Amino acid sequence: MTSLLNIPDLIRKKRDGETHTRAELEQLVLGYTRGEVPDYQMSAWLMAVYLRGMQEQETADLTMVMAQSGDLMDLGTLERTVDKHSTGGVGDKTSLILTPMLAALGLTVAKMSGRGLAHTGGTIDKLESVPGWSPELGEEAFLRQARQTGLALVGQSKDLAPADGKLYALRDVTATVDCLPLIASSIMSKKLASGAQTVVLDVKVGAGAFMRTLEDGRGLARAMVDIGTRAGRQVRAVLTDMDTPLGFMAGNSLEVLEALDTLRGEGPHDLTELCVALAVEALAAHGEDETQAEARARQTLRDGSALAKFRAFVAAQGGDATYVDDPKKFDVAPGRAQVLAQTAGFVQKVDALSVGRAVLALGGGRERKGEAIDHGVGVELLKKPGEAVAAGEAVLRIYHRDGRGLDTAQRLLEGGLAVSETAPAAEPLILDRVN
Amino acid sequence: MTSLLNIPDLIRKKRDGETHTRAELEQLVLGYTRGEVPDYQMSAWLMAVYLRGMQEQETADLTMVMAQSGDLMDLGTLERTVDKHSTGGVGDKTSLILTPMLAALGLTVAKMSGRGLAHTGGTIDKLESVPGWSPELGEEAFLRQARQTGLALVGQSKDLAPADGKLYALRDVTATVDCLPLIASSIMSKKLASGAQTVVLDVKVGAGAFMRTLEDGRGLARAMVDIGTRAGRQVRAVLTDMDTPLGFMAGNSLEVLEALDTLRGEGPHDLTELCVALAVEALAAHGEDETQAEARARQTLRDGSALAKFRAFVAAQGGDATYVDDPKKFDVAPGRAQVLAQTAGFVQKVDALSVGRAVLALGGGRERKGEAIDHGVGVELLKKPGEAVAAGEAVLRIYHRDGRGLDTAQRLLEGGLAVSETAPAAEPLILDRVN
Repeated sequence: MTSLLNIPDLIRKKRDGETHTRAELEQLVLGYTRGEVPDYQMSAWLMAVYLRGMQEQETADLTMVMAQSGDLMDLGTLERTVDKHSTGGVGDKTSLILTPMLAALGLTVAKMSGRGLAHTGGTIDKLESVPGWSPELGEEAFLRQARQTGLALVGQSKDLAPADGKLYALRDVTATVDCLPLIASSIMSKKLASGAQTVVLDVKVGAGAFMRTLEDGRGLARAMVDIGTRAGRQVRAVLTDMDTPLGFMAGNSLEVLEALDTLRGEGPHDLTELCVALAVEALAAHGEDETQAEARARQTLRDGSALAKFRAFVAAQGGDATYVDDPKKFDVAPGRAQVLAQTAGFVQKVDALSVGRAVLALGGGRERKGEAIDHGVGVELLKKPGEAVAAGEAVLRIYHRDGRGLDTAQRLLEGGLAVSETAPAAEPLILDRVN
Repeated sequence: MTSLLNIPDLIRKKRDGETHTRAELEQLVLGYTRGEVPDYQMSAWLMAVYLRGMQEQETADLTMVMAQSGDLMDLGTLERTVDKHSTGGVGDKTSLILTPMLAALGLTVAKMSGRGLAHTGGTIDKLESVPGWSPELGEEAFLRQARQTGLALVGQSKDLAPADGKLYALRDVTATVDCLPLIASSIMSKKLASGAQTVVLDVKVGAGAFMRTLEDGRGLARAMVDIGTRAGRQVRAVLTDMDTPLGFMAGNSLEVLEALDTLRGEGPHDLTELCVALAVEALAAHGEDETQAEARARQTLRDGSALAKFRAFVAAQGGDATYVDDPKKFDVAPGRAQVLAQTAGFVQKVDALSVGRAVLALGGGRERKGEAIDHGVGVELLKKPGEAVAAGEAVLRIYHRDGRGLDTAQRLLEGGLAVSETAPAAEPLILDRVN
C-alpha cells in the first residue's frame, strides 16, 4: 500500500494548482462513487478543478478512473468497432443515418444511446417511433446482433461509468458544469467504458449548442481526442454549426422520416454532408484513405446498402420493418399550424434552441427523466437561413396533437425567427476537424 | 420582495470573480445557517471565495451577516466598552493581565472567551485554575458585573454568530481554512456580535501562529480593522512575534501564576510590554493621547489597581480570591523533569508549537471539545532565545503528574529546541501596528 493523502489534502493540492496522480484521482472519484467521500468535499474539489484546471494527462487519468467506476463493455470479440457521439443539438438525427452507413461500410457499431431531456432529443426516443423497436437487449444478444448486422443499439446502462452520473448531478447544482476537463471526461468516460476501438465525435458549436464559440468547441474536441489517444483509442472530431437545426425536421417520427429520406439518398444537403463527413472520419480512424472513404460513404446512400442495414437493424431489435419501406405508416400528429414571416426579406435565423423548446412544449420531449412523450409532434423548417421569403409566407410548420402546447410553441418559434433585408453570409456546416 | 438569484447562480457569481451584494450574502449565509442551503453548495462557494477573493465592502458585509446569524449582545447600557482578541498562541496569558488593566483604566470589558483546543490554551481554562471561578453568568448578572467591576468574562454562547461555527466546521474539511476574508470575517463576526464599541486585536505571527509571515499577518490585521471600521467600531491591531512562547510559563495554573506576577509589576519583560502596548491601543481607540495612555497603563501595574480589579473580578464570578494573594495555594503538579542543552552555545529557538503540544501531551489541554484537563501541568522556559547555555544545562522544566505524557512531552520539547554557536539576532516582540 502506498500511503494516501486524506481528502482535504487532495482538495488542497488542486486548490493550489497542483497536478493529481492517477492514484489520487482513484481515491477521490472511486471513493465518491462508493459514497465514502461526501458531496461537500467533492463539490469543493470540483470548484478547485473549475478554477485551476487540469493537465492533459491528468484529464485522461480522471476519465479512465471514471470509466472504471463501473462495468467495462468488452467488445474484443467484434472487429473494426466504432462509436459516435454528438455533444447534443436540435433536429440531430445523424446517428439514425450514420450508424447504418458505418455498418454498410464494414465497421461494427455496438453502441449505447441516451434518451432526450429538455430541448435535446435522444436517438432511443426517435427509434421508438417504429412500433416494436426496443433498446433492451441482453449483453449476449447485443454482441451477437452487432456481429451479424454490424449495428446494435441499446439504452445506456446505469452501471456504465456511474461516477459520471453522480458527478454530473453534483456539478449541476454547484455551478461547475461548463468546465472543459470535466465536460471532456464526462463524455469520454462513457465512450471508453463502451469499449469501441474508434470514436467519431460531432462537436456542436453555436446558439443551440453547449459550446457557443468555435474556439470553445475546438478546445473540447482537442481535449476529447487527447483523452482517447492516451487511452489507446483512435478518436476524431468534427466541429459543426448548431445555430440552426440540422435538416428540416425536429420531433421524433418526423426525424425518422427525414433519416429514411437521407438513407435513400434524398435527404437534406446539410444532413447528408454531415453524415458523409462523419463516416469519412470513422473510416480514416480505421486507416482508410480519405478520398476513397468519401466515395465509399456516398455510395452506401446511393446503392441502398445503408438503408438495408437500417432495415435489418430495426427488425433485429423487434421493430416493424414495414415502416422502413412505407413511411406513411408513421404516426404523425394531424394538427397543423404555421409561423409566418412578418416582413419580406431573407431568413436570418431559425434559432435551434427555440425549435427544441417548441418540440418540448408540443409534448415531443420530456422535462424530467421517465416522462412519456408524443412521438408524432414536431416542427418543420419550410425555409432555412439565407432563403428569401415574402411577407406573410410560412417559414415553419408545426405538427401538433389537439392544440396541446401550440400557443407556447408558436410564441417560442416566433421569438426565434429573424427575417432581415439582406441575405446573411452563408456559414459552412463543417467548421473544423480535430484528430 | 426583490427577486433572488438561485444558489447555483450565486456560486457562479463568485466563481466568475464578481462581487456579492449584502442581500446575496444573507441568502447564502443565513440560508446555510438555517439548513436550507446544503453543505455541498456552500463548500463550492467557499472554494470560489478562496480562489477568487472578496472585496473589502463585501468582506465587511459577509461579517455583518454572520454576526446577525444569531443573538447580538447589547452593551448599550455600558460605557467605554472594549473587547480584545488574540489570533492564538502558546503561553498567551495576555487576557488575564490586560483585561483587569483596562478595567483599572476606566474602560469596561464585558467579554466572551473560549476554551483551549489542541496546542492553544484558552482564557476560561486558565481562570478555572482558581477554585470556584465560573464562566457561567446570566446576561443580567454579566452586564451588572461589567458595570460594577469593569470586567466580566463568560464562555462563548452557542447563539453568538452560529453561522461562523457551521462555516468553520465545513472549511476545516474542505481545505478552505487559510483564506484571508474568511479568517477575518470569522473572527470579526464574533467581535461584532459581542457588542463592544472598540476592539484591540493581537495578531500573532511566526512558527507558533496561524499567520506564518509578517506580510500575511499585516493583511489579516488590515482586513479586520477595515471590517470593524465599516461596521462603525474602533478597531486597532498589534502584530506580535509568536516564534517563542510569551513569558516563561505554559500551562493553566502556571500561566495564572505568571499573570499574577505581571499584575504585581514583576512579570516577564515581553509579556508586560505586550500588555502595555495593547492597553495603549485600547485607550487610543477611545481617543486618548498615546504617550499619556502608556504612562497610565504602566501605573496600573505599579500601584496595584489592575491586581485589585482582577481580585474583584475573580470574587464576583465565584472564585476563591485568597488564591490571588497567596499563589502557593494553586495546584501545581509535583512531578519535575528537565530538557537540557546538548551543546554549549546560545538558545536559538524554543518552538512555540512544540511547547503547546507538550502541554497537551502532559494533560494540560484537550484534543476534542469537552475533555477534562489537568490545570497543574505545564512547561517553564528557564532560558529564552538569545540566552547563553552550557552543555548539559537545563533549558526547559516540565511540570508533570505521575509521569503522564512525560516521554512524549520530552521528545517534543527536545525537537523544538535549537542551540547554536552564535547568538540569534534579537527580534522585537511588537512587529507592527495597524489602525
